[in-house]
Amino acid sequence: MGKVYLIGVGPGDEELLTLKAIRAIKEADVILYDKLINVNILNYSKEDAKLIFCGKEAGKHYKTQEEINDLIVMNAKKGKIVARLKGGDPYVFGRGGEEAIRLYNEGIEFEVISGVTSAIAALNYAGIPATFRGVSQSITILTAKSEGELKIDYEALSKLNGTLVFDGTV
Amino acid sequence: MGKVYLIGVGPGDEELLTLKAIRAIKEADVILYDKLINVNILNYSKEDAKLIFCGKEAGKHYKTQEEINDLIVMNAKKGKIVARLKGGDPYVFGRGGEEAIRLYNEGIEFEVISGVTSAIAALNYAGIPATFRGVSQSITILTAKSEGELKIDYEALSKLNGTLVFDGTV
Repeated sequence: MGKVYLIGVGPGDEELLTLKAIRAIKEADVILYDKLINVNILNYSKEDAKLIFCGKEAGKHYKTQEEINDLIVMNAKKGKIVARLKGGDPYVFGRGGEEAIRLYNEGIEFEVISGVTSAIAALNYAGIPATFRGVSQSITILTAKSEGELKIDYEALSKLNGTLVFDGTV
Repeated sequence: MGKVYLIGVGPGDEELLTLKAIRAIKEADVILYDKLINVNILNYSKEDAKLIFCGKEAGKHYKTQEEINDLIVMNAKKGKIVARLKGGDPYVFGRGGEEAIRLYNEGIEFEVISGVTSAIAALNYAGIPATFRGVSQSITILTAKSEGELKIDYEALSKLNGTLVFDGTV
């Protein structure tokens, strides 16, 4: 049995990669990545690592979440070290939780490596502190897109007096 | 005139430091840090860097936010590269915004380096995805402590059907 790393690679700037993410990428035999990551990050991979693109490309079939899960599981069961790269943080949208549950159910060892979440870093790039004493005592990050129904209570949101971030990168 | 880096160093695990944070720490002439950071991070500093502890110690006077701001400004005006290290992300509580505004008003060049926010990474360590499709479509991070009045509308929060994180590290 191999091992799987679900890795947050941050908001795009390759310098916002963590040391732990780099260590895991260097270890990996198989790397699954999508369009939300900075591809320069792949330069940390082993020379013979297998790189698998999982993003959408115009006019081509793209891998469903189920197909991605299957690829991760199949490679781990072959004894491979698998790195699944995700923009931002693996657990802030991006469906890292679904991959983790599948791995848990299959009895495969895995580790989730937190990353700099784009939902907060993007505000920084715009000069906006996510929180500010006396102005914003909370931050709420919501998904702005969903395959299913979005249940957003805008009246409740308006009463939080905090920062609201709508994340469109599902 | 020097330059100031407001740096998020993540939730404690020194491997969750970003490459950009390390670069800035290596550049710094003066480093201000407090009790929320992993002190091993200071090993990245230059041999002759001045390290200033800004945290609370039992029975001793500790620096107020105003004193910390003054120290940063004074050193930058001497032409020093100043690194202000903060646990997690500089803009998720931790008063990075107040330091940034002071620097802006003083006309001092500064850069805010996003970090892995402890408010989300702590959930990961406990095996809890911050969001999960069909279960939690939002995450709200609130401060659980404040010098001023906390205005939390619990009824509104209960209607979000999302993950709530109460951050006690002010």
